[in-house]
Amino acid sequence: MQRKSFADIECNIARAVHDAGDAWTLMILRNALLGARRFQDFEEQLAAPPTTLARRLRALTERGFFVRRAYEAHPPREEYELTEKGREFLPVLLALAVWGGRWLSPAGPPFEFWDERSGEPLEPVLVDARSGQRLVAGNVALRAGPGASRRLRKAMENRRVVFGAPAAVEGRAQ
Amino acid sequence: MQRKSFADIECNIARAVHDAGDAWTLMILRNALLGARRFQDFEEQLAAPPTTLARRLRALTERGFFVRRAYEAHPPREEYELTEKGREFLPVLLALAVWGGRWLSPAGPPFEFWDERSGEPLEPVLVDARSGQRLVAGNVALRAGPGASRRLRKAMENRRVVFGAPAAVEGRAQ
Repeated sequence: MQRKSFADIECNIARAVHDAGDAWTLMILRNALLGARRFQDFEEQLAAPPTTLARRLRALTERGFFVRRAYEAHPPREEYELTEKGREFLPVLLALAVWGGRWLSPAGPPFEFWDERSGEPLEPVLVDARSGQRLVAGNVALRAGPGASRRLRKAMENRRVVFGAPAAVEGRAQ
Repeated sequence: MQRKSFADIECNIARAVHDAGDAWTLMILRNALLGARRFQDFEEQLAAPPTTLARRLRALTERGFFVRRAYEAHPPREEYELTEKGREFLPVLLALAVWGGRWLSPAGPPFEFWDERSGEPLEPVLVDARSGQRLVAGNVALRAGPGASRRLRKAMENRRVVFGAPAAVEGRAQ
């Protein structure tokens, strides 16, 4: 059986990829977080074909990224307001920005980030909230979570699964 | 002019989206970080159509996510080893995992994360490396970076651009 969607993989990442893992969605969320609200904003900023854009905005609204809100009664006009689900997508986009700035910008990143209040430069990193430890390939392990099915819970028993473990990378060659 | 690619938008995020912002790429990187190395690993774990998978793995190798390495001489067999560029994509996937666990898992996340050494649970959050401040919609501003073109630098002069600023969200309705 070959795959049509990743929605059936029982995994937080697969679910997120199914819901938001395509280029148009990522760019629409980027622009919405940068202040775009009206159809024309997205259309102009992204040079988006109107049919593609209309389809994506409708799908994203149905999936709870946006609510539509009237901003004018005569003639009736609506704009797309990000929900909490949409606003909380920001760390994904910032992680993409850091990675894209580092690996795809040989002359240096086109944009950098700074603290809105202090005006100090920001260096976004992913850490553990409690220990402050940086999370990188090799130190993050996985286990079945509270929402895991019995099947997944069973499959993960006594397994040691680490993201990008050096052992996994080097081990096979021996 | 309507868009065929996001590569021409001068933005760290757009570059990352162009390079890695599609579902197959995200899932292949996920599985590679979880230890998949051989064509068959990806094919089985992702139920991937072989032609799709071969095309993606070739493109990702050309773009520097993987190096191909022989692991058997007779018959010749190769596996896909993640480069630093590929391994450093992990924060993007973890940010997706946190978001997918929170917004797409009504019964709780199927997976959770824990510290490989201490065995303590991890709560991945995006912070500023220096201050430890959490980066969320409303407190992250943008400015032209060292690699910005003269045109972008000019366009950003005297502009206050904040990701998901409450003012931008509420301001238009007045």
